[in-house]
Amino acid sequence: MVKTLNITPLTAQAFASFGDVVELAGAEHFPINQGTTERYHDLANLNLNSVGGKPIVSVFVSQPRPQPIRLEVMERHPLGSQAFYPLQDRDWLIVVAKDTDPLALENLKAFRATGQQGINYAANVWHHPLLVFDADSRFLIIDRDGPGDNCEEQVFKTTIHLET
Amino acid sequence: MVKTLNITPLTAQAFASFGDVVELAGAEHFPINQGTTERYHDLANLNLNSVGGKPIVSVFVSQPRPQPIRLEVMERHPLGSQAFYPLQDRDWLIVVAKDTDPLALENLKAFRATGQQGINYAANVWHHPLLVFDADSRFLIIDRDGPGDNCEEQVFKTTIHLET
Repeated sequence: MVKTLNITPLTAQAFASFGDVVELAGAEHFPINQGTTERYHDLANLNLNSVGGKPIVSVFVSQPRPQPIRLEVMERHPLGSQAFYPLQDRDWLIVVAKDTDPLALENLKAFRATGQQGINYAANVWHHPLLVFDADSRFLIIDRDGPGDNCEEQVFKTTIHLET
Repeated sequence: MVKTLNITPLTAQAFASFGDVVELAGAEHFPINQGTTERYHDLANLNLNSVGGKPIVSVFVSQPRPQPIRLEVMERHPLGSQAFYPLQDRDWLIVVAKDTDPLALENLKAFRATGQQGINYAANVWHHPLLVFDADSRFLIIDRDGPGDNCEEQVFKTTIHLET
C-alpha cells in the first residue's frame, strides 16, 4: 500500500528540532561596506570541528527524481552539522525524521523551502538526500570533513510518496 | 588626476596568490545521493578557527555603487579567510591588492567573476568591499567569528575608477 507524506511550508519554528533555517527573516542584521551592504549575521549553528574535523565548502548539482517522488533512503551525520543553500531562486523540498525509526510515516516531516531559504541539519538529524524540482539545481554545502564514520543510512522498505 | 584600473576575467590561476576561486571547473567531483547529485568537493581553503575563532555563515545583501565605480577603501582580515558565493547568476567584481601598499594602482588587480564563481580571500589579503552591478545582490559568506581585531582598513586618498 502506498502511503503519502504531506508537505508544509518551511519555517524556522517548524524546523527548530532538526536544525536551522538559513534566511533573512528574523536575523540580526546591520549595515557594512560604507552603507552599501546589509550583513545578515551568523545564520546557523555550525558544528564542524568535532573529532579532528574541519569545515569545508562544496557545491552539489542535483537532478529531480521522477514524480511522484518516492522516498528512498534516510541518512544522518553523527559527527557534524550540514548546511545547504540554494544557488537559484526556486523552491525545493526537505524531508526529516525524528531519531526513533526514521522510516515510519508518523515520524517524517516534509517541508517546501523557497529559493531564499537554506537549512542546516544539526548533527545526527535524519534527512532524505536532496529533492529538487529542476534539472541542474545547484546548492552550496557547508559540512564537516575529517576522521571517523560520519554517515548512517536506512533504506525505505515500504512505499511512501511525497504529496504532489 | 583620475586613474583607471583595468578589469580581467576571474580565473583560479590569476587569483591564486589571493585565495581560491570557488567553482566547478577543475574541482574533484563524484556522484552521491543514488546518482541524482554530483558533489564538487572541498572547493576552498577555509581558515576559520585561529585564536579561538569559529566558522559562521551569513548573507550579505548589496547595492551597486555609482558608475564609474570609484575605489573607496581596502580591508583585510588577519585572523581568518572570508568566502563569498553569489546567490544570483549575475557577474560581479573583485578588487584585491598585494600586501605592500594596497592603495597603489600598480599593486591592485580587478577581476570580473561570473555568477557561478565564488571566491575565498586568504587571511590577510587586501580586498575592496563588495562590488555588484544589480540592486539587492545577495551573497552567502563563510567567515570567522571570535576574539581579536580581525579588520584593518586603508582609505584611498587618490581617485581610482574601475574600467567601465
